Amino acid sequence: MKNTVTRRSFLAASAASLLPAAGASIMGRNGFPPMLADDAAAATKPREDWKASGILDLSNSPYARLKTVPVAAVTIHDGFWQKRRQTNVGSSIPSMHDELLDHGRMENFLRLEGKSDAPQRGPVFSDSDIYKWLESVGWALQSGDQPQLRSDAETMIRQVVAAQEPSGYLNTYYNGDRRSERMLPATQETGHELYCLGHMLQGAVAWYRATGDPTLLNAGIRFVDNFLLPGYGPAPNQNPIVAGHPEIEMSLIELYRTTRNRRYLDLAGYILHGDSRIPLTPLQITYMFCGVPFTSRMRLEGHAVRAMYACCGATDYYLETGDTEYWKTLNVLWEDLSQHQIYITGGVGARESGEAFGAAYELPNARAYGESCAAIGNMMWNYRMLAASGDAKFTDVIERALYNGINSGMSLDGRTYCYRNPLAFDPTGDSRDRHLTDGRIRNPWYDTTCSPPNLERTFASLPGYFYSTSDEGVYVHLYDNSELNWHLLDGTGLNIVQTTRYPWEGEVQMRVSPARPAEFTLFVRIPAWSARNTVRVNGESIAAPVPGQYLAIHRRWASGDSVELSFDMTPRVLRANPAVTENTGRVAFQRGPIVFCMEGLDQATPPRQRNLAGFSVKASGTITAAYDAALLEGVVVLEHQGSQEEAPPSTSLYFAADTPQPEASPATLKLIPYYSWANREPSEMQVWIPYIRT
Amino acid sequence: MKNTVTRRSFLAASAASLLPAAGASIMGRNGFPPMLADDAAAATKPREDWKASGILDLSNSPYARLKTVPVAAVTIHDGFWQKRRQTNVGSSIPSMHDELLDHGRMENFLRLEGKSDAPQRGPVFSDSDIYKWLESVGWALQSGDQPQLRSDAETMIRQVVAAQEPSGYLNTYYNGDRRSERMLPATQETGHELYCLGHMLQGAVAWYRATGDPTLLNAGIRFVDNFLLPGYGPAPNQNPIVAGHPEIEMSLIELYRTTRNRRYLDLAGYILHGDSRIPLTPLQITYMFCGVPFTSRMRLEGHAVRAMYACCGATDYYLETGDTEYWKTLNVLWEDLSQHQIYITGGVGARESGEAFGAAYELPNARAYGESCAAIGNMMWNYRMLAASGDAKFTDVIERALYNGINSGMSLDGRTYCYRNPLAFDPTGDSRDRHLTDGRIRNPWYDTTCSPPNLERTFASLPGYFYSTSDEGVYVHLYDNSELNWHLLDGTGLNIVQTTRYPWEGEVQMRVSPARPAEFTLFVRIPAWSARNTVRVNGESIAAPVPGQYLAIHRRWASGDSVELSFDMTPRVLRANPAVTENTGRVAFQRGPIVFCMEGLDQATPPRQRNLAGFSVKASGTITAAYDAALLEGVVVLEHQGSQEEAPPSTSLYFAADTPQPEASPATLKLIPYYSWANREPSEMQVWIPYIRT
Repeated sequence: MKNTVTRRSFLAASAASLLPAAGASIMGRNGFPPMLADDAAAATKPREDWKASGILDLSNSPYARLKTVPVAAVTIHDGFWQKRRQTNVGSSIPSMHDELLDHGRMENFLRLEGKSDAPQRGPVFSDSDIYKWLESVGWALQSGDQPQLRSDAETMIRQVVAAQEPSGYLNTYYNGDRRSERMLPATQETGHELYCLGHMLQGAVAWYRATGDPTLLNAGIRFVDNFLLPGYGPAPNQNPIVAGHPEIEMSLIELYRTTRNRRYLDLAGYILHGDSRIPLTPLQITYMFCGVPFTSRMRLEGHAVRAMYACCGATDYYLETGDTEYWKTLNVLWEDLSQHQIYITGGVGARESGEAFGAAYELPNARAYGESCAAIGNMMWNYRMLAASGDAKFTDVIERALYNGINSGMSLDGRTYCYRNPLAFDPTGDSRDRHLTDGRIRNPWYDTTCSPPNLERTFASLPGYFYSTSDEGVYVHLYDNSELNWHLLDGTGLNIVQTTRYPWEGEVQMRVSPARPAEFTLFVRIPAWSARNTVRVNGESIAAPVPGQYLAIHRRWASGDSVELSFDMTPRVLRANPAVTENTGRVAFQRGPIVFCMEGLDQATPPRQRNLAGFSVKASGTITAAYDAALLEGVVVLEHQGSQEEAPPSTSLYFAADTPQPEASPATLKLIPYYSWANREPSEMQVWIPYIRT
Repeated sequence: MKNTVTRRSFLAASAASLLPAAGASIMGRNGFPPMLADDAAAATKPREDWKASGILDLSNSPYARLKTVPVAAVTIHDGFWQKRRQTNVGSSIPSMHDELLDHGRMENFLRLEGKSDAPQRGPVFSDSDIYKWLESVGWALQSGDQPQLRSDAETMIRQVVAAQEPSGYLNTYYNGDRRSERMLPATQETGHELYCLGHMLQGAVAWYRATGDPTLLNAGIRFVDNFLLPGYGPAPNQNPIVAGHPEIEMSLIELYRTTRNRRYLDLAGYILHGDSRIPLTPLQITYMFCGVPFTSRMRLEGHAVRAMYACCGATDYYLETGDTEYWKTLNVLWEDLSQHQIYITGGVGARESGEAFGAAYELPNARAYGESCAAIGNMMWNYRMLAASGDAKFTDVIERALYNGINSGMSLDGRTYCYRNPLAFDPTGDSRDRHLTDGRIRNPWYDTTCSPPNLERTFASLPGYFYSTSDEGVYVHLYDNSELNWHLLDGTGLNIVQTTRYPWEGEVQMRVSPARPAEFTLFVRIPAWSARNTVRVNGESIAAPVPGQYLAIHRRWASGDSVELSFDMTPRVLRANPAVTENTGRVAFQRGPIVFCMEGLDQATPPRQRNLAGFSVKASGTITAAYDAALLEGVVVLEHQGSQEEAPPSTSLYFAADTPQPEASPATLKLIPYYSWANREPSEMQVWIPYIRT
C-alpha cells in the first residue's frame, strides 16, 4: 500500500522534483527552492484520508525510514499506561479545561468577538495553552469518543475561529494598544506570535486527524496563506522572520505534510536558516536557539524547550529534504545530549536561569530544572530521529524520558503538575523556590501553564509511538498490553497483540497476525538497559539479541505466530561519569526503564539529617524488588540493605576530614519509582544516594 | 578620652533620653520615638573632629561594646595586604575612574547641568557606582595623599553637587520622561533611588572623614532634610517608603552618627520596620529583604546583597537603640548564615537566579553565585556584629570572607573583577554563562558594575578593620605588618607594631607601647582554624588560648612590651556537613585563613577528564607547603600526594557502579590560594576535590 496516500493531484509536480539532489546541502537563503506562485495558496486543502495519519504524517517523507501508524490503530489495554491515560482523559484534560476557562484564557478570544469585556489575561503565549489543550483532545478522541471533551473542544474551536481577523491574523495578546507591535522584529523575538500559530496548527492537525473537521485547520491555513506568506519571508519585499521560540518550524512542516503545499516546507526552511536582517545578540542566539542557520549549531545551549523544538523542526526538515548538513548537525547535537546533557530521568535543561542547558556535565540534582516541556521536547525530537534512522538509541531516550522525567510531570490523580522535575528535593528548605507553593512542587495551575497541556497531549498521543512501519516490515518500539490493527506498507493487514506486565516484569508475549501469510521483518527493540535477553519465535530461541538495538526477525509470518521476549529486570546500581561533579560518590537505582528514588516518608528509620544525608548504599547490600498494589496506584518497590549514620557531632558546615565518622547502623533503604514521587505529603527525595564500596 | 568626641551642643537632649529603655523592643510604627520638629533640620551639621572617626563612628553608640579606630590611625607596612592596597590605589581605583567616565556615568550628571547632551547611560543604579568610587578615594586618602585621585574626586563631587535640584533631589536616572516616576511605590521597589542616596551618604561620609570637606555631605543632608524627611515617613500626611534595595538604612544611621540628628536614626528605624501602606507580594518580601518588620525575619533569603545590607542596617540600628528584638533576630539570621549558607570562602548567595540565598545547605560549586558584593556585605555585617558583642566568631567570618571570597573578586593586577565567585570552573563549558567573556570570569567592566568599586572601598578602608577599642582596652582583629597610632578610650596614647609573615606563616610579633604605663586588656584574636597556639608576653607563655576566642591579656602595659603569637599553620583537609549534597565524597584544603584550590594548568599530569575529574585526595597522602615568590605575586603553594585515574572506558553518562574503576596512578596535586585563581590563562579550577579514605 506504499504511496497509496499520495493522491493529491497538485503533487503531479512532485515534491522530489523541487528538492535539491539527495544529500546536497542548502547553505543560504538564496539556495532555497523557488517559492510557489501566490495563487497556489488558494489550492491548499488538507489530505482527504485524515484517518490514515499518525502523530506525524511521514507517508510521503522521502527521508523517513520509518512511517508512523495512526493513534487509532493502537489500542492500549489494561496495564501501566492505560491507567495513566484514563486519568489523563478522565481527570487531567477536563480539569485543565476548567482551569483555562477560570483563568480567562478563552475570554481572551471572546473579547475580540465583542462577547466579553474582560481584559486580556495571562502571559504573551497564553493562546498556545488553548491550542495544546485542543491537541490533547484531538489525540484523545482517536482512542474512543469523549462526548463532553468533543463538545467542549468544538465550542472552543468555534470561538477561536470567530476571533480570527479577515487578514488571517489571530493572536489575543496583540490587540488594542499592542496592535502596533505585531510582528515587529522585537515582538517576534519575545512575543510568541509564531509560537502560538505553531501550536494552533498542531492542535488543528490533531483535531483534523481525529475528526476530519477542518475548521481549525483552515483557520490556520488562512493565517499562513493570507497573512504570513504574503508579507514575511526571504524576498526583499517581504519582512524578515525570527521564530523567537521555535515551534512554528515543525508545525509548518506538518502542515506541508497534511496539505502537500510546498511553500510551508520552504517557509520552515527559511525560518530554520534565520534571516540576518534581524540582527541578534550572542545571548539571544544562544537563548532562543534560532535566528542563525540551524546547521551552524555545535551544541545544545540556551532555553531547553526552544532548543528541543528547534531540533524537532530541523529533523522534520531533514525528513523531507534529506539535507545532509542538517543530519550532521542533528547528530552532533544528539551526541552532546547523550554524553553531557541528559538526566538519568530523561529530563534536560539543568539550569533554572533561562530554563537552559548548562555546561557539559552540569547536572545538579536539587537545583535541576528539567522542565516537563523540555523532557517532552526531548521525546518528540528523538521520535523524529528514530523515524529518520531506525536506530534504537533514540528509542532508548524516548523510553527513559517517557517513563521517568515526563511521567513525573503529572500527579497520579492527574490534577497537579510539576513545572520543574528535580532529582532531589527538600520541601522545607526549598520553599524559597518560586515554583513551590507551601513546599509542594505539584500545583494545579501555573500562570505559565505550558507543561500541563503538553503532558496531556503526550499521554493522549502515546499509542502513536508504539509502532512504525518501513519498507522491510514493522518496528515495535514500546511494550505494554496493547493491540495493533494496521497494515504493512504494502497494504497487508497486520494485527499484533502484546501481553505483558512491562515495565514491572520483563516478559512480553506478542501474537503477530498478518491478514495473509507474508514475508517481512519484525523489528523488536532490545532495551539498552537489558543485559541478558531471550527472544523466542513460536518457542524457538533467536540468537544474540543485542542490547540497545532492534532485533530484526525476518521470516514468513502467519496468523497467530508467537514472539516471546524476556528482558533482564535485575535492579541496576548506576554511577555517573566522574565529570558530573554533583554525583561524586553517589549512585542511582534503575530497574527496567524505571528510575527509582528515596522519599523520606518511606524510610523505616526516619531521616536524621537534612537532604536525607546519612543514608548510604552499600556495594555489598542486597536489593529486592516487589510489586505493591496498594502503594501509589501500584508500583514496584526496591528495598536495599544499606546503612544510615547519625548526624555529625558539630553543627559546623565545615570540619576536619579525619573527624571520626558518626556511627553507621544497618538500614533498609526503600525506593519508589521516580515518576511517582511527591504524590503524598511533602517529603524529602533523592535519586542519587551516597555509595559505600564495601 | 571616652565621650570626648560628644561635644555638639544640640546633644544636650542626649540621644539616650530619647531612647526606649535599654532592652525594650520597638514593635510597631506607632512605637517610634517622636520625630524632631522640622526646624531641627536647619541645625544639621557634621561633627567637627572629622579625623577621629573610623569606618563607622561608634563613639556615641550606646550598644557598641567596641569602638572603631580611624583608618588613618593604622599604617599597613610591606606584606600581604600592602601589595593589594598599592594595586588598589595605583591601578584599580584609577582604571575604574576611567571606565566610569568612558561609560558615561559622569555625563549622566553633566547632562543635568546642561553640560552634556549625551543620553542617560547605564542601569537604574548607575549613580551609586560613582558614589562608591568616591568612597574608595575617601578611605584611600586616609592612608596618604593621592593628588590625582583627590583632584579627580573633587571634580566629580563638584559635578555631582551641581546636578542637585533645589528640592534636594538628586538622581540622574529619574529625569526627563522618567521624572514623573520619582518615588512612586513601584519606583521605590525597583528604582534604587534610596539605594543611590545611601551610597551618596556613605561616599560623602568617607570623603568628609578623609578631608574635612563637607561639600558632598551637605548635599546628601539637603536631599534627606529638604526632600526626604518632609515628604516621606510614617505620618498620615507623609508618603510611605520601601527601601527596595536596602542600603539607605545603614547610611542614614551613619549620617546620624556624624551629625547626631536623631531624625535620621528614626527614619532608618521606620524603613527597617517597613510600611504596610506599600503592599508587597511574598516574592518581593523575600527577594528585597525589606518592606516588612526586620524583626519578623527568620532566615536569610532572597537577594543576598539586599539581605546583607539590611542586616548591616539592622545591626547599626541595634548599636544605637539596643532593641533586643533586633539583636535576637540578627543572631537567628547569623546562625542560619554560619550553619547553612556560607561558603568555605566566605561567599554567600548560592543562586544565580535572583542572585539569592538558596535552601539550607544549597552550596553548589561550579554554579555558585557568591557575588563579590555579597561577600563584602557579609564582612560589613559581621564587623557590626563584632562591634556589638566583641565575639571572635564574627571576626572569623570577616577573615574568611576577606582573604578568600572578597580577595578573589579583584585580579592581581587590579584591573579585572569577578562578578560571581564560583568554587569550581570550566572555562570551556562555562562559556554558556552570561557572566563570562571568552571563558574569562574576570572582566574590566560590567554594565552592572557594583562589584569593582565595592572591592575598592573595602581594600581602601581595610586598616580601619584591624583594631577596636573598648572600655577594657584594645582588640586586635587582624594580623599583618602594621602600626597602630591611636589611643585608648581613656585617652592614653597607644602604639602597637605588628611584625609577621601572616597569612603565610603563623608567627606574629607585637610591640605594645602605651604613651605611659597603663593597666588595660589587650584582646588578641585566636583564629578558630588554629588548633594549637602559644602566646607569650615578654617571653612568658600565657595559659590556654582558646581557638575562636579573643585571649584577654590584662596587665599593666609599658612601652615596648612584647607579645608573641604563634598559630597552627598545619594544612587542614576539611569536609562539609553531609547535608551539603554537592560535596559528598569531597574535601577542601585550608591553611591559616587561606582556602586553596586546584587549577588545571598547575598540575604536573594534565587533567585527563572534564571538570578535573580523576584527581583524588588520599587520606594517607602527605601535604607540603612552600612559599613561591615567583608565582602569582608570591603565594604559598600546597602539594599533596594524591592520585589521578584515567577517564572511564565509556563515554556514557551513566554506567554500572561495579564497572571496574580505571587505573589510578599516584599524582601530585598542586594547590594555590583560591583568591589567586584565574589570573593566568583560563583553566579548570576546583576547591572541593574527591577524597579517598586510604
